[in-house]
Amino acid sequence: MSEVSTARAATAEGIGTGLLVVGGVGTAVLAGDSVGTIGIALAFGLTLLALVFAIGPISGCHVNPAVTLGVLLSRGIEPARAAVYVVAQVIGAIAGAAVVLAVASGRPGYSRAADGLGTNGFGSASTGGYGLVPVAIIEVVATAILVFVVLSATSRTASAPHAAGVPIGLTLTVLHLVAIGIDSTSVNPARSIGPAVLTGHLALSQLWVFIVFPLVGAVIAASVHRLLVTPARAA
Amino acid sequence: MSEVSTARAATAEGIGTGLLVVGGVGTAVLAGDSVGTIGIALAFGLTLLALVFAIGPISGCHVNPAVTLGVLLSRGIEPARAAVYVVAQVIGAIAGAAVVLAVASGRPGYSRAADGLGTNGFGSASTGGYGLVPVAIIEVVATAILVFVVLSATSRTASAPHAAGVPIGLTLTVLHLVAIGIDSTSVNPARSIGPAVLTGHLALSQLWVFIVFPLVGAVIAASVHRLLVTPARAA
Amino acid sequence: MSEVSTARAATAEGIGTGLLVVGGVGTAVLAGDSVGTIGIALAFGLTLLALVFAIGPISGCHVNPAVTLGVLLSRGIEPARAAVYVVAQVIGAIAGAAVVLAVASGRPGYSRAADGLGTNGFGSASTGGYGLVPVAIIEVVATAILVFVVLSATSRTASAPHAAGVPIGLTLTVLHLVAIGIDSTSVNPARSIGPAVLTGHLALSQLWVFIVFPLVGAVIAASVHRLLVTPARAA
Amino acid sequence: MSEVSTARAATAEGIGTGLLVVGGVGTAVLAGDSVGTIGIALAFGLTLLALVFAIGPISGCHVNPAVTLGVLLSRGIEPARAAVYVVAQVIGAIAGAAVVLAVASGRPGYSRAADGLGTNGFGSASTGGYGLVPVAIIEVVATAILVFVVLSATSRTASAPHAAGVPIGLTLTVLHLVAIGIDSTSVNPARSIGPAVLTGHLALSQLWVFIVFPLVGAVIAASVHRLLVTPARAA
Repeated sequence: MSEVSTARAATAEGIGTGLLVVGGVGTAVLAGDSVGTIGIALAFGLTLLALVFAIGPISGCHVNPAVTLGVLLSRGIEPARAAVYVVAQVIGAIAGAAVVLAVASGRPGYSRAADGLGTNGFGSASTGGYGLVPVAIIEVVATAILVFVVLSATSRTASAPHAAGVPIGLTLTVLHLVAIGIDSTSVNPARSIGPAVLTGHLALSQLWVFIVFPLVGAVIAASVHRLLVTPARAA
Repeated sequence: MSEVSTARAATAEGIGTGLLVVGGVGTAVLAGDSVGTIGIALAFGLTLLALVFAIGPISGCHVNPAVTLGVLLSRGIEPARAAVYVVAQVIGAIAGAAVVLAVASGRPGYSRAADGLGTNGFGSASTGGYGLVPVAIIEVVATAILVFVVLSATSRTASAPHAAGVPIGLTLTVLHLVAIGIDSTSVNPARSIGPAVLTGHLALSQLWVFIVFPLVGAVIAASVHRLLVTPARAA
Repeated sequence: MSEVSTARAATAEGIGTGLLVVGGVGTAVLAGDSVGTIGIALAFGLTLLALVFAIGPISGCHVNPAVTLGVLLSRGIEPARAAVYVVAQVIGAIAGAAVVLAVASGRPGYSRAADGLGTNGFGSASTGGYGLVPVAIIEVVATAILVFVVLSATSRTASAPHAAGVPIGLTLTVLHLVAIGIDSTSVNPARSIGPAVLTGHLALSQLWVFIVFPLVGAVIAASVHRLLVTPARAA
Repeated sequence: MSEVSTARAATAEGIGTGLLVVGGVGTAVLAGDSVGTIGIALAFGLTLLALVFAIGPISGCHVNPAVTLGVLLSRGIEPARAAVYVVAQVIGAIAGAAVVLAVASGRPGYSRAADGLGTNGFGSASTGGYGLVPVAIIEVVATAILVFVVLSATSRTASAPHAAGVPIGLTLTVLHLVAIGIDSTSVNPARSIGPAVLTGHLALSQLWVFIVFPLVGAVIAASVHRLLVTPARAA
């Protein structure tokens, strides 16, 4: 994919991350009461599925700094380009959260403080009352699963790299089924930053958790992937 | 696809749009109380997914004037053929809505005035009480997402154009998850016209919203697609 | 597929139709209270999706006399082989219904008379109280949609005939979303015969409806398919 | 796939089975109250779908001793390698269950004894109160269906072996829709062993049921597959 300029690829990453927030966080904020955990999980996963088909050929469709880190560690992207990707992803996520907020603000009775904007959290911000430790475990494990599936399904020796959006997107759906009740599911620092920046306070103070632990998961995933897949490719 | 005559392709567009209304609007009207937002969202999306596989090779499976506009702006269809497509789509949608009405009329206690026919609306016609501004925003954004995915997933350089129905259909599901509670989700002027013509009054008076804003979204999508995808193809 | 003997192909049709009943009717009978209309619709559709991948290469995976009729009218199968298919489908469906009944009978409090066996019906047997006319309309239209998708998605000029299970199965899901509340959705005479034979009385007396109207739908689908697709193939 | 060393393939099987437990059992334990039977069924099925894409090229992605037995009987794996696979699957399942337990233990009020760990069971351990006989029937039939789909969809003459994860995963979803209310659905001895080992007592005393009957189902599936598919391949 190096034939696509960094500027164009980063634009795709920014737009894609914004659309992921519109589809996923948008469903949580605008329709969560109606569609519940299953609906939100489908929204995140199916949006990512579609994005991989749509912008995968342009930028690889990371739309997630943890994925970009995993790809970087697997030597699938140059460091400078990875840094630009992450900046674009964060900008896109904030823009996407702003679109969700603009629409939500049109609902009679909506209050950003009371109804939230789909931020991630633990402790008093966790639906199930989970503390930092289980949230850290789930973010590391879940992000490792997502990044491992991304790396495996898109490798040149994968069975169906052209259809990689299917396993990648549906993995994100499963991870939301498991973890929405725990911490609203991050596995993606940009997805967490977007709503937190527009909400402030508690979400911002907890934000480091949803940056650090997903990135730890990405490091683990890249290691496992190297262990399992790379030598098989060399063989 | 130019080897398929306009008459035959337009017939496919008419039938396809009718089936989209039967599957999507039909589920909303006949089963909405039972299947809720998730069921309706799946019905619209999975119907479109199947239609892309079934009639994609015949007409491209637009089944939506906004998609036809996006394809036209991307120079994927001639203007005259596009105009015929749109006429066929509108006729098909009205026919599809008539089938739904015929079945619904067989339910004891069904009243077109009280139970509706799956029309789109804002203000007093919005489940969530959303006004014109958030509805306009969501229709522009959501239609832009749909048309962008259609253009990207079906371009000759897409990773899996033969499977484009999967991302396209599932994108429509996500857009319904987000927006059913806002305005019942249009993103497709033909889908809005069909039920409105058979219901009249309020739906007809608001119909312009679900024609204008989806078309605006299509224009934006075509611009973004040109920006991101076309130069990459030229490279 | 003519290189597969009729005996082996018919065996596959019998087993496949039995599994469709176990998956679909089984979910309705054993888990319907828990999973509702969406769960039953997914069960029918995803079972068919998997069967098309599993036995499609052996028999074409009709598992439905209406599909066999549609394929016959499209000259995709010889009449004698089609007749054997239908016999196998009906036997398989009865066997599948027997498996469901055997499991259900192990539930404390289950009564075949009171809890039923997933039969189709209208009038007093319709959840929504629909009479014969709307049921006839929905069976004709829904079966026509299913058979049209089968014929289109499996034609040699289809975009992805190897993945035809995806649009075919998901179409069946949509048709169940629309019509479970009307008549429990047949669109497949064998699927209706299996439970009816083991339940008797009312279901048997209404059975003709779920044989005749699906077959009418298949005739319409074959005509529309010939109109739309065949000439394009000749071109 | 014999070019991948047994050690590496078995590692993939262990990790994969652990992830299946994290995704499926994790959803049941951590989110079951919120997502219900449909959510749990989607979690198991979509996790398996993604795993087939991710580790299928490495180990074949059995992640289930019943599948390994079916593949062994179809001469798709050597006996020694199969034995190593099964050991890895069981270890992985226990590790996966430990992760779920670690997270669940972080929820205020969680009690392993009262809230369980997603174990399989019959009699007093069955949600629906089903006894041993219906549970034995459903485990034999359901596992036979799963293994038959695995063998058929991955055979070299299958229509889309590169996309086999789709029918295989979605079949597992259907089997959970049917049987969660009966015995929480095993069809996979490793999936049953993991939570039982960490829960003890009743689950351990019933564990033989979820080892024996799935394996019986696998034997039946291999026989049916040989009957239907193998000669067709020879022809």
